[in-house]
Amino acid sequence: MDGGMTGIVACLGTGNVGSSWARLFARAGYDVRVWDARAEQAEACAAMVAELYGSGLVRAVASPAEAMAGAEHVQESISEQPEAKRVLFAEIALLLEADAVLASSTSAIPASQLFDDLTCREQCLVAHPVNPPHLIPLVELSAAPFTARKTVAQTFALMEAVGQKPIEIRGEIPGFALNRLQWALLGEALHLVEGGYCTLEEVDLVLTHGLAPRWVGHGPFANGHLNSIGGLAGYFSDLRHAMECVWSTLEPPRAPSPELVERLHQSLAQTMPVAHIEDHHAARADALARLNAYLADRRRTEQA
Amino acid sequence: MDGGMTGIVACLGTGNVGSSWARLFARAGYDVRVWDARAEQAEACAAMVAELYGSGLVRAVASPAEAMAGAEHVQESISEQPEAKRVLFAEIALLLEADAVLASSTSAIPASQLFDDLTCREQCLVAHPVNPPHLIPLVELSAAPFTARKTVAQTFALMEAVGQKPIEIRGEIPGFALNRLQWALLGEALHLVEGGYCTLEEVDLVLTHGLAPRWVGHGPFANGHLNSIGGLAGYFSDLRHAMECVWSTLEPPRAPSPELVERLHQSLAQTMPVAHIEDHHAARADALARLNAYLADRRRTEQA
Repeated sequence: MDGGMTGIVACLGTGNVGSSWARLFARAGYDVRVWDARAEQAEACAAMVAELYGSGLVRAVASPAEAMAGAEHVQESISEQPEAKRVLFAEIALLLEADAVLASSTSAIPASQLFDDLTCREQCLVAHPVNPPHLIPLVELSAAPFTARKTVAQTFALMEAVGQKPIEIRGEIPGFALNRLQWALLGEALHLVEGGYCTLEEVDLVLTHGLAPRWVGHGPFANGHLNSIGGLAGYFSDLRHAMECVWSTLEPPRAPSPELVERLHQSLAQTMPVAHIEDHHAARADALARLNAYLADRRRTEQA
Repeated sequence: MDGGMTGIVACLGTGNVGSSWARLFARAGYDVRVWDARAEQAEACAAMVAELYGSGLVRAVASPAEAMAGAEHVQESISEQPEAKRVLFAEIALLLEADAVLASSTSAIPASQLFDDLTCREQCLVAHPVNPPHLIPLVELSAAPFTARKTVAQTFALMEAVGQKPIEIRGEIPGFALNRLQWALLGEALHLVEGGYCTLEEVDLVLTHGLAPRWVGHGPFANGHLNSIGGLAGYFSDLRHAMECVWSTLEPPRAPSPELVERLHQSLAQTMPVAHIEDHHAARADALARLNAYLADRRRTEQA
């Protein structure tokens, strides 16, 4: 290993996202130390990873200090509460090895709000994965103005080394790119359901049987390019009137009422009861794993 | 066949969308009559369909009247210009058979703006497909207040009979559901690119390697339900602060400047030159066909 590259990664927090990170790093051959405030959850995560990749690559530890000793990368995935994250970071800042990186999995909080008063802040950034990271490759890196470029480059390289697809978001913005795009769509989904235009199931069908099959292969810009004989310029010109008409009637997204959330939740709970949610997580993970295998095979064929 | 069900379908307009419809109806065994103002384009469409499904199921004709004689369903897919569509509909209204349906493929124009002054308006609605319809099942039906319920029911049944996944949008709204959801996301995509947070390629990666793999299997509501141990109610509660922070910083989408469109177009044209756009259409169609085969196989396995 070069310089500070020790091959050791610390995963702090082992909920759904944290344990998927642990699995991902072990799969790539890293030596993974997992810690969680609930010790039994860290133990369960280590057992799951050991079952898959052998007990030599993973260890549940009793403190952040033990997890971070010798680690080149620390991935924090505790609950999405800014204050809880800041308290943890204040506790562990002095434990971060020289040349190591401290990355938060936060979905939406800017790095400068999480790390600003830490002495190690040059070594800190957001590395936001998509749940579950071991099955979905995109990772958004978002640096604060005080983050060293070396920190970004080192994290980018690590993510590529473990098989992820990192992108760097330039300039801080709440929600980075993925959640801004996803929640812009979700805001309109709530508007359509609240207005009675569609049911929740119909909105989900628009994605599963309409938009998503195209977006697996080409993003929205490339699809626009392919949807007009004039390419993307033709797309914006052909549909300019329709697009402006839609844009002028989008309502600013707002938090759904408790009654609406309850109605939507109950509707989903009929087929996916919360008491058995783990079975449905497993089914989604299985479907994603098979989709990945299919897509990897297709990309190999396209390159051949 | 019952009543007015003649097994004959007229496709008016045979561009990308219209010829995909023709192919879809012939695949399901319908007798398809194709017409286009450019006769050679209708001939090419008929030749393509005949090559796939035999010459007995398709015929290019010289006029809308010839296409519509005996047709139980007329699918209009000419250019997305409201005035051009209204002119065509005025010309053909008297040709529509009793018990037949006239459906427009418009991406965003409400049915009441297209059909209001036609004597046959009770038989008219929007049936908006996703391009290309023979490979993407979702179809949005949108009726005007004057559309007969029978017209909606008959179209819904036809779409199911030919293997599509129809949904009815209740109440008229510009862009129906699919384009409202897609363009809400596209508006934010333009904001991210214009603000320099991401490149076009990075936005497209967020979809292809982040959001779309999940959305192929579960829509945004079902994914929210699966992303929190508390189900959808937990998702909205855990992420309420982050979501409100993102929503409050979304800018109202607006038309991109000509300079931005040109820059984005040129960027895509490097890998997908407009001169060879047909090759890239074919590659996308091929990828979609293989994805459909994979997903059909997966759904069979899940049901077994």
